[in-house]
Amino acid sequence: MLKIAVAGASGYAGGEILRLLLGRPDVQIGHVTAASSAGRTLGEVAPHLSPLADRVLLDSTAEHLRDHDVVFLALPHGASASVVEQLAPDTVVIDCGADFRLQDADAWTTFYDTPHAGTWPYGLPELLTAGGRQRDALRGARRIAVPGCYPTACTLALAPAFAAGLVQPRDVVIVAASGTSGAGRSLKPHLLGAEVMGAMSPYGVGGTHRHTPEIEQNLAVAGGAPVRVSFTPTLAPMPRGILATCTAPLADGVRPGQVREAYAAAYTDEPFVELLPSGSWPSTGSVLGSNMVHLQVEVDERVGRVVAVAAVDNLTKGTAGAALQCMNLALGLPETTGLPTAGIAP
Amino acid sequence: MLKIAVAGASGYAGGEILRLLLGRPDVQIGHVTAASSAGRTLGEVAPHLSPLADRVLLDSTAEHLRDHDVVFLALPHGASASVVEQLAPDTVVIDCGADFRLQDADAWTTFYDTPHAGTWPYGLPELLTAGGRQRDALRGARRIAVPGCYPTACTLALAPAFAAGLVQPRDVVIVAASGTSGAGRSLKPHLLGAEVMGAMSPYGVGGTHRHTPEIEQNLAVAGGAPVRVSFTPTLAPMPRGILATCTAPLADGVRPGQVREAYAAAYTDEPFVELLPSGSWPSTGSVLGSNMVHLQVEVDERVGRVVAVAAVDNLTKGTAGAALQCMNLALGLPETTGLPTAGIAP
Amino acid sequence: MLKIAVAGASGYAGGEILRLLLGRPDVQIGHVTAASSAGRTLGEVAPHLSPLADRVLLDSTAEHLRDHDVVFLALPHGASASVVEQLAPDTVVIDCGADFRLQDADAWTTFYDTPHAGTWPYGLPELLTAGGRQRDALRGARRIAVPGCYPTACTLALAPAFAAGLVQPRDVVIVAASGTSGAGRSLKPHLLGAEVMGAMSPYGVGGTHRHTPEIEQNLAVAGGAPVRVSFTPTLAPMPRGILATCTAPLADGVRPGQVREAYAAAYTDEPFVELLPSGSWPSTGSVLGSNMVHLQVEVDERVGRVVAVAAVDNLTKGTAGAALQCMNLALGLPETTGLPTAGIAP
Amino acid sequence: MLKIAVAGASGYAGGEILRLLLGRPDVQIGHVTAASSAGRTLGEVAPHLSPLADRVLLDSTAEHLRDHDVVFLALPHGASASVVEQLAPDTVVIDCGADFRLQDADAWTTFYDTPHAGTWPYGLPELLTAGGRQRDALRGARRIAVPGCYPTACTLALAPAFAAGLVQPRDVVIVAASGTSGAGRSLKPHLLGAEVMGAMSPYGVGGTHRHTPEIEQNLAVAGGAPVRVSFTPTLAPMPRGILATCTAPLADGVRPGQVREAYAAAYTDEPFVELLPSGSWPSTGSVLGSNMVHLQVEVDERVGRVVAVAAVDNLTKGTAGAALQCMNLALGLPETTGLPTAGIAP
Repeated sequence: MLKIAVAGASGYAGGEILRLLLGRPDVQIGHVTAASSAGRTLGEVAPHLSPLADRVLLDSTAEHLRDHDVVFLALPHGASASVVEQLAPDTVVIDCGADFRLQDADAWTTFYDTPHAGTWPYGLPELLTAGGRQRDALRGARRIAVPGCYPTACTLALAPAFAAGLVQPRDVVIVAASGTSGAGRSLKPHLLGAEVMGAMSPYGVGGTHRHTPEIEQNLAVAGGAPVRVSFTPTLAPMPRGILATCTAPLADGVRPGQVREAYAAAYTDEPFVELLPSGSWPSTGSVLGSNMVHLQVEVDERVGRVVAVAAVDNLTKGTAGAALQCMNLALGLPETTGLPTAGIAP
Repeated sequence: MLKIAVAGASGYAGGEILRLLLGRPDVQIGHVTAASSAGRTLGEVAPHLSPLADRVLLDSTAEHLRDHDVVFLALPHGASASVVEQLAPDTVVIDCGADFRLQDADAWTTFYDTPHAGTWPYGLPELLTAGGRQRDALRGARRIAVPGCYPTACTLALAPAFAAGLVQPRDVVIVAASGTSGAGRSLKPHLLGAEVMGAMSPYGVGGTHRHTPEIEQNLAVAGGAPVRVSFTPTLAPMPRGILATCTAPLADGVRPGQVREAYAAAYTDEPFVELLPSGSWPSTGSVLGSNMVHLQVEVDERVGRVVAVAAVDNLTKGTAGAALQCMNLALGLPETTGLPTAGIAP
Repeated sequence: MLKIAVAGASGYAGGEILRLLLGRPDVQIGHVTAASSAGRTLGEVAPHLSPLADRVLLDSTAEHLRDHDVVFLALPHGASASVVEQLAPDTVVIDCGADFRLQDADAWTTFYDTPHAGTWPYGLPELLTAGGRQRDALRGARRIAVPGCYPTACTLALAPAFAAGLVQPRDVVIVAASGTSGAGRSLKPHLLGAEVMGAMSPYGVGGTHRHTPEIEQNLAVAGGAPVRVSFTPTLAPMPRGILATCTAPLADGVRPGQVREAYAAAYTDEPFVELLPSGSWPSTGSVLGSNMVHLQVEVDERVGRVVAVAAVDNLTKGTAGAALQCMNLALGLPETTGLPTAGIAP
Repeated sequence: MLKIAVAGASGYAGGEILRLLLGRPDVQIGHVTAASSAGRTLGEVAPHLSPLADRVLLDSTAEHLRDHDVVFLALPHGASASVVEQLAPDTVVIDCGADFRLQDADAWTTFYDTPHAGTWPYGLPELLTAGGRQRDALRGARRIAVPGCYPTACTLALAPAFAAGLVQPRDVVIVAASGTSGAGRSLKPHLLGAEVMGAMSPYGVGGTHRHTPEIEQNLAVAGGAPVRVSFTPTLAPMPRGILATCTAPLADGVRPGQVREAYAAAYTDEPFVELLPSGSWPSTGSVLGSNMVHLQVEVDERVGRVVAVAAVDNLTKGTAGAALQCMNLALGLPETTGLPTAGIAP
């Protein structure tokens, strides 16, 4: 029986981790902690977690997180480092925040407002790397940085094209739509239901979103060369889900057929990535609550570009599902343990 | 390993049954059948069921449903009887349609346009009966009629008050809101997304909805006396969920405190019913995809009425989850096997 | 040219008043005021009001509201009285808050937490009164209390039945669903888009909502006798709109046909109330942004009750449209001036 | 008094034309026609148009459209030509369909499945042309082709950059999200509310959407040189609205500041285009039901691209509002007559 703590359990990511853990017979949910909600019950802040309704949220201190086999951190960025250094080295610590994702301290400093805390193995098992897959770096790891939700969708959409040298590393453009849970539980007027419903709007226009360098890092890993990405996130009137539309110029001399072949080859054995049949389009509605990535890729020959579109649930494969997938790898369990592959629809 | 067939697998209820079955290691999904979608793959009509994407839908004939341990029927009303009579008596047949729910043939005839097909054990385990609970009638049963989605919510909201004699069997008023999946996959203009979003509207106003006699039947079972109910369903701009607001006049001499006590006593041991703490309100958003009923009850002393409000997912506890719960009872498995008790939120 | 000030212009009701005023060539928009948003531009807090984007919000002091022909107040309850006493008696002051709606100081005290400020002519022109219609009390008035959004829908749904003596003044039950703009621009977690979408939930269960005594007051005016109402409001996943399902027991000896006749007679000359043809159901989607009330009424003979359902836009006919309608009456203008009778659909 | 007919009045575009016409005192609504809905009342198919509820829809034959000053056509593509040739040359005919938008017959043939019907003056008054603005071509015109909804948003987002030579005519990438009314009233499963809500999905991936050549035509007009565009449309869970994210590579030597200056200069006198203050983002929620385009533009210096984002209501400025704007120009009326500049929000 694995004893597991969740820090930041009152937030959306923390709640989703708990939902997934509740489905596992091999897990004992230990301490659940929070910041401003400490002292309240989970029933008050997360009534969907019925079996845990009476659990009281503790403060997110290292003291409350010790003595667990696995600790999930779902904290604001900048908050993980001081907690982690007080945890035992052999505890599996899986950080859903951004703190340990970037290798390049300069990129961190450019996009974030806190000191760079370091770099942990990056928790995207399906990522194509020079030596194979990123999952090799996660087996047995004791510290793992879960990817951002946008980077998960965008990377998996473009990595096969980069890895196979089918696209040029310039004029890469990504526009992604996210459900509003992606903004967290922030009390801001533009996130109120009355203002969100019926409204699509962009934010971070002009390349300022913090997930930009993370996407670039991943595509550089896949393609073996630096790349710059134009990334525009938008907020969509739905609770969950990310739809990432990703496009890059075809490399010279590439036949359109090569593209689909490369994607099929890249993902045919991946349990959580489904390349849809030609003519079918991914929908966030089909992956709700699941750990799946639905993907489609087309070549636009008129303009000479690859267009790949990926749908994920930002809280499941985009965060909490990926976190459990990483835990499975860290502990040597089957990678798919306890992770739904069917979405909730309609 | 249980071999299970699902008839009507291209509809919303059938799809939800498959989603829940996919989570069970003790189940082998056998034939999946449909009417107009026969010949297509599940991937085409239900892309959220990734692991079954290549399965081809067969015709919904008895031939395709034989040789399974359990058959789930999710067919239009009137279609089940002719299929069932060709299935072996010891096959567990669980009908999600209305055909076998009503005991009173006259009530059937008044509200439905087909001949009364008969009456099967009614699949609402939590229902209070004269002798205890309805689950007693389901253990070992080979034919079970799954309740309608509205009746599940409305019955569980009012049954404790009726069973304890705390309300009068007159002027019972229920107004319930349902997500639009409750209308099935019908291609009607008023169900188009553009017309549904932002729109609440009633239907079946004036006591004409077919679930009315079923609710009355259940409350009569709980209370031991006939009852008439004013029931108005409304369509809400959400994919799933039912919120049923149910009210009845307090019986003479009842103290308000007795009401809450009766509800607590009725549901304290029920794994799928959560009576919320006073001051918390049920939300369909908290039970999405789960088999839970969230419930609150208050006494309005100014007007002398009990007001009980229940939230369920119409496709899970309202249909497919209840169907699996019934299957568990029929087969002597633990009743909660494979049924989520945490919702997907936010 | 009418010079008009709007106090509370940064809120949803204030914004809707401004939207409607922008459509009028006979109006000059004067000062716009706010509380915590004072000093900001309307462009920042209400970007949909493009023509007023550069207007700076002033403090909501009487000083800023003087020297206007008409002052609309859209303030939190309890805030209007101190402002109003500093305005000239011949200024038309139209209060969208609750402060001056109730005649009965005891009812006020029971439901509100501030001292009773007084009673102004009640701004529901279509309300049937002993002497005719409520509009008679509004012509030439200089102080008008705009009804609450729920009371508008509920009153117009039931008043014809009460006025014609067709229902009994007992066991009146109303369940109403409101879009989340009805809760105002409050920064509360349960109003966040991620938590609202897909979620229906009740609140104020058990007769505690402040609009209850207002509905009772109106039905007493229509029916000529006191009445108690069981009122349960629910929050629906849409920005705007109220759907009120209202039911009362038929009086003895009433023929069903009488009911529809009474409603037809009551509203045939009312420009803002449309009794739909039999078999059509009102939808909040059809009245979005308009000053219309869409209404249907049926008799449920099995249970002996009248069921009337009304749809309004809570911010238009439910608040701001009613406010302009009242202003028209106060100033002797045609009552329909500047008020949309077509909704935005789909 | 202008006598106006609307063909295709049962569709979403036709209904929006009628909504806007209802607000005009200078207009008499003449015949309203439809295809399969002929014989029904507008009240049945478009209940939001209360003042026209009793109007009966006629067949969409030329006979029914004669003897009007203005005829609006909101027909499926391919259907307009045969009707138009039977109308008098001096009748103002404004076609909301695609038939007469494209100048290049080859482009038409590539993207549409009907013969090219011809080319009419293109109804986008704000479009920058070599000689000034497109509105010059619309004054006094008797035949006008209203732009597609996507092209309106995309063109106005990028035209100033093209007209000022600030971007290169290569690697132009546009990703746009549309509310589902953009798909019309088609009875298709993926447009059902239950499947749309919570779901974002792309369609026409790979440059196959019919609006692609229209966008390219417009940008070529603005920039004076041919251009190819990668265009990916997506379906968003909202009834109305388009958010178009449009990006192109900066031309050599362009200072970032030049871009904003060019946009400000292009739109400062345009009544229906609002360039938002820096730091504010356009939202479809702010333009609902209005004829406005909200626009923001940023330069992403890291990648050397202009990113412009536009929000419109696809049925108002995207179709029906544009149609009335064109009518105003054709008839020599003030261009803004009867067109809302404030959106319905929240």
